[in-house]
Amino acid sequence: MLDEKAYKQRVYIEEIHQHVGEEVILAGWLSNKRSSGKIHFLLVRDGTNTIQCVVVKGECPDEVFEAYNQLSLESSLLVKGLVKEDRRSPLGYELLVTDLRIIHRAEEYPIGKKEHGIDFLLDHRHLWLRHRRPFAVLRIRHQVVKAIRDFFNSRGFVLVDTPIFTPAACEGTTTLFETDYFGEKAYLTQSGQLYAEAAAMAFGKVYCFGGTFRAEKSKTRRHLTEFWMVEPEVAYADLDDNMKLAEDFVSHIVQHVLENCQMELNMLERDTSRLEKVSPPFPRITYDEAVQILHDNQIDFQWGDDFGGTDETVISNQFDKPVIVHRYPAAVKAFYMKRDPQNPDLALAMDVLAPEGYGEIIGGSQREDDYDTLVQRLEEHNLPREAFEWYLDLRRYGSVPHSGFGLGVERTVAWICGTHHVRETIPFPRTIYRLTP
Amino acid sequence: MLDEKAYKQRVYIEEIHQHVGEEVILAGWLSNKRSSGKIHFLLVRDGTNTIQCVVVKGECPDEVFEAYNQLSLESSLLVKGLVKEDRRSPLGYELLVTDLRIIHRAEEYPIGKKEHGIDFLLDHRHLWLRHRRPFAVLRIRHQVVKAIRDFFNSRGFVLVDTPIFTPAACEGTTTLFETDYFGEKAYLTQSGQLYAEAAAMAFGKVYCFGGTFRAEKSKTRRHLTEFWMVEPEVAYADLDDNMKLAEDFVSHIVQHVLENCQMELNMLERDTSRLEKVSPPFPRITYDEAVQILHDNQIDFQWGDDFGGTDETVISNQFDKPVIVHRYPAAVKAFYMKRDPQNPDLALAMDVLAPEGYGEIIGGSQREDDYDTLVQRLEEHNLPREAFEWYLDLRRYGSVPHSGFGLGVERTVAWICGTHHVRETIPFPRTIYRLTP
Repeated sequence: MLDEKAYKQRVYIEEIHQHVGEEVILAGWLSNKRSSGKIHFLLVRDGTNTIQCVVVKGECPDEVFEAYNQLSLESSLLVKGLVKEDRRSPLGYELLVTDLRIIHRAEEYPIGKKEHGIDFLLDHRHLWLRHRRPFAVLRIRHQVVKAIRDFFNSRGFVLVDTPIFTPAACEGTTTLFETDYFGEKAYLTQSGQLYAEAAAMAFGKVYCFGGTFRAEKSKTRRHLTEFWMVEPEVAYADLDDNMKLAEDFVSHIVQHVLENCQMELNMLERDTSRLEKVSPPFPRITYDEAVQILHDNQIDFQWGDDFGGTDETVISNQFDKPVIVHRYPAAVKAFYMKRDPQNPDLALAMDVLAPEGYGEIIGGSQREDDYDTLVQRLEEHNLPREAFEWYLDLRRYGSVPHSGFGLGVERTVAWICGTHHVRETIPFPRTIYRLTP
Repeated sequence: MLDEKAYKQRVYIEEIHQHVGEEVILAGWLSNKRSSGKIHFLLVRDGTNTIQCVVVKGECPDEVFEAYNQLSLESSLLVKGLVKEDRRSPLGYELLVTDLRIIHRAEEYPIGKKEHGIDFLLDHRHLWLRHRRPFAVLRIRHQVVKAIRDFFNSRGFVLVDTPIFTPAACEGTTTLFETDYFGEKAYLTQSGQLYAEAAAMAFGKVYCFGGTFRAEKSKTRRHLTEFWMVEPEVAYADLDDNMKLAEDFVSHIVQHVLENCQMELNMLERDTSRLEKVSPPFPRITYDEAVQILHDNQIDFQWGDDFGGTDETVISNQFDKPVIVHRYPAAVKAFYMKRDPQNPDLALAMDVLAPEGYGEIIGGSQREDDYDTLVQRLEEHNLPREAFEWYLDLRRYGSVPHSGFGLGVERTVAWICGTHHVRETIPFPRTIYRLTP
């Protein structure tokens, strides 16, 4: 029988095509089994893929053949065998087993073939991760994150890890998580933008990318209390430059996933024809034009309001690519956004709406770079001047036109994977009702 | 005079070598200036590098020559000029100015040439970032993070973003930041390891990498309340595999920085001869051997204690590379570490100590994979069984030998840069006394 340390010679299933005709050792877990009596079929996964292992009576030691009966689902095992091509299997290869060792015989595994409710599955998220769908979604998430970082790194952006502890409650405390910070109050960040602006004046082009928090009592399928956001910020860039960067960026992510995740997209039965169309330029419409689309579709929408999820779906359904909506009413947007010189009631803001009803994945703007105007905005928004003195410094010492945006990772992954709810797109989701496991 | 939107045609200083003999536009800030009367010298930075721009009377419009007098430090400006090679300058190129536009004339800039105290500089961190030393250190940090991710991505590890909100106070609440989570208590993570272990059983090889928190009232130069940690976890890997991974990993980071950050290391006047020696294998010594080193150096150290900062310095000073210390007394290590089968008083733990007095940069171990033993450890450590039921599940369903470690980004950057205090290695440091800007 295989030595218990035989995993040191193992190969991963994703490399198996390099070993056709060779005897190899795999180290993994049993994800399924069946038998015709004289031939046992073991479905073994090792985290990179799944392979069918065939155990034929008489072609391996008897003790190996008999081990089948002890193998419960999710038992861990080492298998040794001959790699054979097999065109019928999804992988294209199978293993003819010559030796086997059970590392740990699993207790009766709680996740079965029957349908489980979402709460049961989320309660068992630490085990559910082993299954087909989370496997595919989270491997795609991995590639989305890689694409994000590669995009900015290859364009000379400097990563700036902005703080999660922030001192001021910039826009009211109702959606902020608070903690005691050695006697002071600190809040968990909702955006690294203001810090990224400071860094852009030092490094030219920067991005921050980390955990972000929102204590919203929101139960929609688009909200988590803890999520990941990437926020580029560019000195000497206006709204047009910002829209160009956003469409190049989103296109790069989607094309990277299409090139690297065909297996995962197939596992999810994702129709990729819509994704294949995602390339620059994206259609660009003004807020006014977006409102016109809503009215043309008999939606009761008041000019000046912000779009809701349904509105976004109707707007984005007009296009076969993500659509950029720009120049929103300043009144519904944040204090730091620059006004449109052509119409001061409008902010130089832009959102990117994903197709297929996935809604906003990017929100951004050109930033107000004039000191006096920004001071006035702080007053209009009843924000404490003192907390923003350092931010005002950026307009005292060499202010420049600058722009940036934030992209939510989970919404982007949900769109690319075609998952209904963002909670599937993060390993251990945190929502208003869920803090475990 | 240059149009205010002329920055749209700009090139970055780091690309200037591609434009010798051409007229280009730069967009940046004035970091210094001097004049001989008929020739003005402007030192212009744009976030990628700094270049000397020469303004010669008679070779540009008079209004451009006169603009010199209005240029205060850190004013933002566009300059147009001819790129010339200049072997005397650090960059190797200078710009002969033909046109110029001041974008924003800075108020009197607070950071001058005189020595400032560290508190003054940290109070002005949003501006201090623009200066030579933070510029170099944080660009190296960027490359360290890139090297970390590239290393794991190229080896087939899957990124698993583990949660920052955690429900249980695993090892006492004294060093945890607490927040109200919709009526429940939640704590900010000190490590993603337990979640990474669950994910390793699903994806084989994983890493998590994000913000990490410690509410320690610690004022040493090695501690921040908020820092970044990367934690790989590998299924089917023992302590030896873990040490091999760690030495390959640290070597990759250092070599990547040496290859990509010569300018920054020069700016910091870092002696790189020690860094050049960082390649596998690293010396490996047992805890017992480390204690012997301390005793040989007349250090009063009790077997069974954990090493302090001074102890680590004495031990690491014996070697010209990072040193791996393994097999610590189990009593000073965490509950989840597997015991050494050869000596159950020892844990299969390992730390990597950086040279030159920088101390521990990696801590890791093989994990306890036996269900009954882990239950016993929880009891010995007075840990609430119920909070760990999901973690115990990993030993119920296909348990395998597995190992991992954590590397602190800031300590690693401090070592590579040769900075005295870790607060210099993160854009906006958070310490017991500092939550701003």
